[in-house]
Amino acid sequence: MMSTPPLAHIERAKRIKVMIFDVDGVLTDGSLTYSADGEVSKTFFVLDGLGIQLLAKTGVVTAIISARKSVIVVKRAADLGIAHVYQGIHDKRVAFAQLLEATGVTADECGYIGDDVIDLPLLTKVGFAVAVPSGHADVQHRVHYVTRAAGGRGAVREVCDLVMRAQGTYDAALAPYYA
Amino acid sequence: MMSTPPLAHIERAKRIKVMIFDVDGVLTDGSLTYSADGEVSKTFFVLDGLGIQLLAKTGVVTAIISARKSVIVVKRAADLGIAHVYQGIHDKRVAFAQLLEATGVTADECGYIGDDVIDLPLLTKVGFAVAVPSGHADVQHRVHYVTRAAGGRGAVREVCDLVMRAQGTYDAALAPYYA
Amino acid sequence: MMSTPPLAHIERAKRIKVMIFDVDGVLTDGSLTYSADGEVSKTFFVLDGLGIQLLAKTGVVTAIISARKSVIVVKRAADLGIAHVYQGIHDKRVAFAQLLEATGVTADECGYIGDDVIDLPLLTKVGFAVAVPSGHADVQHRVHYVTRAAGGRGAVREVCDLVMRAQGTYDAALAPYYA
Amino acid sequence: MMSTPPLAHIERAKRIKVMIFDVDGVLTDGSLTYSADGEVSKTFFVLDGLGIQLLAKTGVVTAIISARKSVIVVKRAADLGIAHVYQGIHDKRVAFAQLLEATGVTADECGYIGDDVIDLPLLTKVGFAVAVPSGHADVQHRVHYVTRAAGGRGAVREVCDLVMRAQGTYDAALAPYYA
Repeated sequence: MMSTPPLAHIERAKRIKVMIFDVDGVLTDGSLTYSADGEVSKTFFVLDGLGIQLLAKTGVVTAIISARKSVIVVKRAADLGIAHVYQGIHDKRVAFAQLLEATGVTADECGYIGDDVIDLPLLTKVGFAVAVPSGHADVQHRVHYVTRAAGGRGAVREVCDLVMRAQGTYDAALAPYYA
Repeated sequence: MMSTPPLAHIERAKRIKVMIFDVDGVLTDGSLTYSADGEVSKTFFVLDGLGIQLLAKTGVVTAIISARKSVIVVKRAADLGIAHVYQGIHDKRVAFAQLLEATGVTADECGYIGDDVIDLPLLTKVGFAVAVPSGHADVQHRVHYVTRAAGGRGAVREVCDLVMRAQGTYDAALAPYYA
Repeated sequence: MMSTPPLAHIERAKRIKVMIFDVDGVLTDGSLTYSADGEVSKTFFVLDGLGIQLLAKTGVVTAIISARKSVIVVKRAADLGIAHVYQGIHDKRVAFAQLLEATGVTADECGYIGDDVIDLPLLTKVGFAVAVPSGHADVQHRVHYVTRAAGGRGAVREVCDLVMRAQGTYDAALAPYYA
Repeated sequence: MMSTPPLAHIERAKRIKVMIFDVDGVLTDGSLTYSADGEVSKTFFVLDGLGIQLLAKTGVVTAIISARKSVIVVKRAADLGIAHVYQGIHDKRVAFAQLLEATGVTADECGYIGDDVIDLPLLTKVGFAVAVPSGHADVQHRVHYVTRAAGGRGAVREVCDLVMRAQGTYDAALAPYYA
């Protein structure tokens, strides 16, 4: 009897120690809602939030690297217990170098999910590179996995579930809800 | 001549005395919009609101159990005349036990509609368990009925109509609009 | 050579002197966004606005009848030059009677576009009854026309264009933009 | 061996020196969200923003012409470095004449992307006329190109990419992200 070799992206997700999320278009649906006084709102998704919290409980470090800067990201990260937040740095390589030093992991032990060309410098370095279906075409052709769910509508939950399943931690993380 | 046996989920909806609604992803579309100062907005659906009001008029008790806590839920519940509101309790079993005591019904006489794994402890206990199509896959496989309409876009109205039809109260509830 | 008889709904649109719009689900997409302090926002569509303004220029009176009450409706109506605004009356027949008296037209000379069962008392009285595709099934089976475009996403523009075309005023209304 | 002649809209995009964007329905999804106090919010898209910034870096002048007037447009234009902003003028020809004088280019050297009949006077004059798929049917039949992506959801990025590819500047503009 023949055994099926594991899929390449599952193998990559298995060795992730840090999972990094882009904000606009990934944790959000990419919409930037300007109010009458020029302030910007962003829209996140409730299912994604629980995924990040469950993933963190399994021991994977969660992080945000965003080119734009907003109090919103600080607040959302705090709500979800994301400790490492880098934003307002257009060249994401600078933030990534700082994150590697702070966490003591290699680029190959990081996962990153992004949606645009400014994410390419990181997507081409990390061990597990992910894009969302609404992302830029140039990005989708250069990642290991494109989510089925849309950015800001389950893409992040899909990645969190995928990493937990690849690492064999999914059932234990969900156990409290099956009790 | 042969008669068709009623569908199992119709039979279950028939004996419901209390209908419980999850908030994020069910009464809303799951979006959490953060404004520039970090405050969160939620988006409900007008058709769902009338469904809850009509169902309550037929004598079914309506309730909300939400893991997150927000003034928004208090306000929306007040707008729709939902008397039993439990929120800010991550373990929904605690809130459910309180609701059963307050209303004097059994778990089998309750319906619950949810969308994520934190709803499983309740979905596996109630007499009529419902999920929304955008909910987590683990939830959809463990309920009696998955709505056709999306959460925050008619799923709640669909359930309210289904319960009223199963209980034979639909036509009387709608009669004022056909006068 | 045989001539094709005009469609029934075109004939009905031809004799309209007053066009009445429901708000939630018709002029908006039905979403009710609650902010952290419990205030509600509603989302309209830019293409619909120009349709109402063009229709009014051709001499058709435009009006709003809404069961809910909101400053938003007053503001949106003012932005679009809608003179007749009735809101906060759950029994829409009362508002309709007032509108007929104020405008001096018959029910048969009115068009109405709605989305839910509370609109049925008006939809069954007016000369030209319209529903949106996301409206309640009970409503869609009782109107003369269901729009292809969604509520709050072009349904109103579609009706305005349809009435102008039926009345032969479309080309003159659009002429300034073809100059 | 035969060579395929370049597509007409590519040829047109090649000679553009100024690219003009409509706001509602093009830079935004057309939604106008009214808050409880009657103030209006508009929703932009993060991918579109980077496209405008990249296009400007290649030397194409970017501009906004909007019939409505809002502080939001001033703020969004500032965020994206759009120097030429004309708004609050219902007859867009007036703004267009001012823009031609300010930039010293001919109408044939301008591109314009719009969605409604008030855009027709400009769309029929510019060298490269573009519409969004959700735009009015009368507009879509009179342009050189209809985007595949929706307004406020990538239509603007698609046009920016198309112009850069037609002008042979795409690879150089993206090079920093492939370093």
